[in-house]
Amino acid sequence: MATNDLLEKRLALFPVTTTYSGAAGSATLRIGGCDLQALADRYGTPLYLFDGATLDAAAAAYQEALQRHYPGASGITYAGKAFMCKAIAQWAQRQGFWIDCTGAGEIGVAVAAGLPRDRILVHGVNKSKEDLEAAVAHAGTIVVDNLPELYRLAGLLRTGSTTPQLWIRVRPGLAVDTHIYRQTGQEESKFGMAPAEVVAAVQFCQTEGLHLTGLHFHQGSHFHDPAPVGPALDTVLDLLVELRGQTGWYPEILCPGGGWGVAYHEEELPHPSIDRYVEFVAQRLVAGCQARALPLPTLRLEPGRSLVAQAGVAVYRVDTVKRTGARRWLLIDGGMADNPRPALYGARYSALPVTAPDRPVAGMTWIAGPYCESGDVLIEGLVLPALEAGELLAVPVSGAYHLAMGSNYNGARKPAVLWLREGCAYTILRRETVEDLLLRETELPPDA
Amino acid sequence: MATNDLLEKRLALFPVTTTYSGAAGSATLRIGGCDLQALADRYGTPLYLFDGATLDAAAAAYQEALQRHYPGASGITYAGKAFMCKAIAQWAQRQGFWIDCTGAGEIGVAVAAGLPRDRILVHGVNKSKEDLEAAVAHAGTIVVDNLPELYRLAGLLRTGSTTPQLWIRVRPGLAVDTHIYRQTGQEESKFGMAPAEVVAAVQFCQTEGLHLTGLHFHQGSHFHDPAPVGPALDTVLDLLVELRGQTGWYPEILCPGGGWGVAYHEEELPHPSIDRYVEFVAQRLVAGCQARALPLPTLRLEPGRSLVAQAGVAVYRVDTVKRTGARRWLLIDGGMADNPRPALYGARYSALPVTAPDRPVAGMTWIAGPYCESGDVLIEGLVLPALEAGELLAVPVSGAYHLAMGSNYNGARKPAVLWLREGCAYTILRRETVEDLLLRETELPPDA
Repeated sequence: MATNDLLEKRLALFPVTTTYSGAAGSATLRIGGCDLQALADRYGTPLYLFDGATLDAAAAAYQEALQRHYPGASGITYAGKAFMCKAIAQWAQRQGFWIDCTGAGEIGVAVAAGLPRDRILVHGVNKSKEDLEAAVAHAGTIVVDNLPELYRLAGLLRTGSTTPQLWIRVRPGLAVDTHIYRQTGQEESKFGMAPAEVVAAVQFCQTEGLHLTGLHFHQGSHFHDPAPVGPALDTVLDLLVELRGQTGWYPEILCPGGGWGVAYHEEELPHPSIDRYVEFVAQRLVAGCQARALPLPTLRLEPGRSLVAQAGVAVYRVDTVKRTGARRWLLIDGGMADNPRPALYGARYSALPVTAPDRPVAGMTWIAGPYCESGDVLIEGLVLPALEAGELLAVPVSGAYHLAMGSNYNGARKPAVLWLREGCAYTILRRETVEDLLLRETELPPDA
Repeated sequence: MATNDLLEKRLALFPVTTTYSGAAGSATLRIGGCDLQALADRYGTPLYLFDGATLDAAAAAYQEALQRHYPGASGITYAGKAFMCKAIAQWAQRQGFWIDCTGAGEIGVAVAAGLPRDRILVHGVNKSKEDLEAAVAHAGTIVVDNLPELYRLAGLLRTGSTTPQLWIRVRPGLAVDTHIYRQTGQEESKFGMAPAEVVAAVQFCQTEGLHLTGLHFHQGSHFHDPAPVGPALDTVLDLLVELRGQTGWYPEILCPGGGWGVAYHEEELPHPSIDRYVEFVAQRLVAGCQARALPLPTLRLEPGRSLVAQAGVAVYRVDTVKRTGARRWLLIDGGMADNPRPALYGARYSALPVTAPDRPVAGMTWIAGPYCESGDVLIEGLVLPALEAGELLAVPVSGAYHLAMGSNYNGARKPAVLWLREGCAYTILRRETVEDLLLRETELPPDA
């Protein structure tokens, strides 16, 4: 592929505001009107950037697609597990979204962000006592994973003065075509209730007078073809017919989860279409309800990755250029500690130099982090220009499941995170320090 | 296997002080003289325990084996990457060990622990400017990974008033039989220098008057057969003959790294013998030096996992017992966030109930954490008694590369860590709180 074609393709992985400007050979990448070289020099590296306009565009794509394709009421819940902090929760609130929190930790962040109860939805396959108490105290909606949890929750709701609405998570028993770690709906998955358990859950809620309003299922994460959601949706609608017959209950809200994928590498482009995903789900739900003479429920989607992944960019500094055997390595100042996805899933990324991204490519390059772990290889074999030590490298599609799964391995301090909009950069997470690493520590007593 | 045989085997995975006592059916596990049920009730779960006596026993095994098998001078460097905090650094210091730190973060922890310069050794395949500055300021020994780093380091040492000793990391170009993520010595690994680069490094140090005292290599991590270290050691000794001829330099200290494995599951027992590993390395080094008429260098070993893994135990509470398809699940309150090794490496663990571990086993059990990730399955298919919700589960061999690689995924707060000795439990890391999660956060400005 010619350099310019490759550059154009890679730019399509980056936030929608990404440009490069300057004389040939000295242009620099800009995102949200901010020069990446200047940001890295000021805030240090590794540095994570989130582009507000790209987040807004993904949010608009979901909202417009729902308006276009779904005749009933609808809404979006941002899946906080992809990237959670006060700033992103506040952004989600401004979009009119709810936020999905897993457990007391994420609930605490959403509350600290000022989100009101009706915007907080709580998930979790195994909610601890603390998680359930936080959910009852702060959530508008609690998605119940299993019957024992429902019974525990009923005990808490009896003594509490608040009444969050409850949803039931059903496990349709079908798998989607994605990495096995990202499948969640198959029969032997740890998640959700089997259809017979759903019937028991509905009857229990009716007996106890619990405010049961929704049904949730989730087929897995990062899929590129919506088709496998179809049979799962049909299975759920068949269950609803049965449920209605047996109990009279029918959900006000149906949530087919999230999981829509993104392109991480230029060979996976174009980005899977949000419109196509929403259209598929909406049409299938409308047709399925019509065929079964069911009323249209409110449709709530739960995107995480497809809302935030493309908005995020990781910027690293190349400290060392090294050759081992036939390989040319760029050793950068981050990797597995801020992005465990290559090690966990074999995820394949791309990258561009921050300065002069329009330089001719010079051959295959291996890109690795500083950690004492052979799995700390961020990108294996990417065609790149001949970067030198001291240069900056920008890795696109870094907004989801990087920092959320990040660690302090080898004493790594978590990166600073900036929010970019119209030439301004706002620090939303400051860089972690050695002092932070020591906060929880105590000396070893002399006799221990 | 009969229940009692299985129990005895599993107990061999636990710390050396582990016992269970009490009437049949109500006995509880004790470690370091402490009742695990009482600890979990007081400190909460997930809870990590380190048994001082087991740490001491592993340290003594290394020291005694070195005295038994190696006629020259020798020493131990604890590989901090396995589990690093002030307490373990202080323990290592009391053992007379050095500590291996990767980067400025771990150096900062070692310094905060009060370790003197001569006990701090610094590793890293890609030391940043900050890492190198911290190393020059605080380390007694810096292991140089590559030539560009050596040149940068020389610049810092010229302007500094301190003179840490330098070692060179050589890449022997041979692989050991372990998971590909844990191989580090093969030709195309990102680590270390090729033999020709080592010659250049030695000559540079001579020209610059740098205090070059050692040679380091490392073949990978968690291997169970020392044999593949032999050819690598021979390759290094051949290089030393050549180096001596070309430069006159010969290392005072030779470090064949670490990487000795442990048993994680009863089917991998007995634990690989520390004595056998040290004996193999020592004999091969003595024979290799004799065959080449080389003087015996000081031998420094660098164990991490084999020092701390068995001393560590993770205690979880079962919140939910669940059946999906043919599987019986115990859903516990920790998993991937405190132990990513099953998801990263497919690592296989075992477990015992804390109460009545001598109960008859009831069948195959899948053990998963609370995280919204299908990869968050800690143990797939383990024969266990029929535990109920509310019970505690103890997972042995949890001391290495769990908390070191831990995350805050799904808002998880990092567990409390206790140090156990002779009936006393000392908190060495307090449990993380939601307030801790929010420390680095800033609000999203209205116009952002």
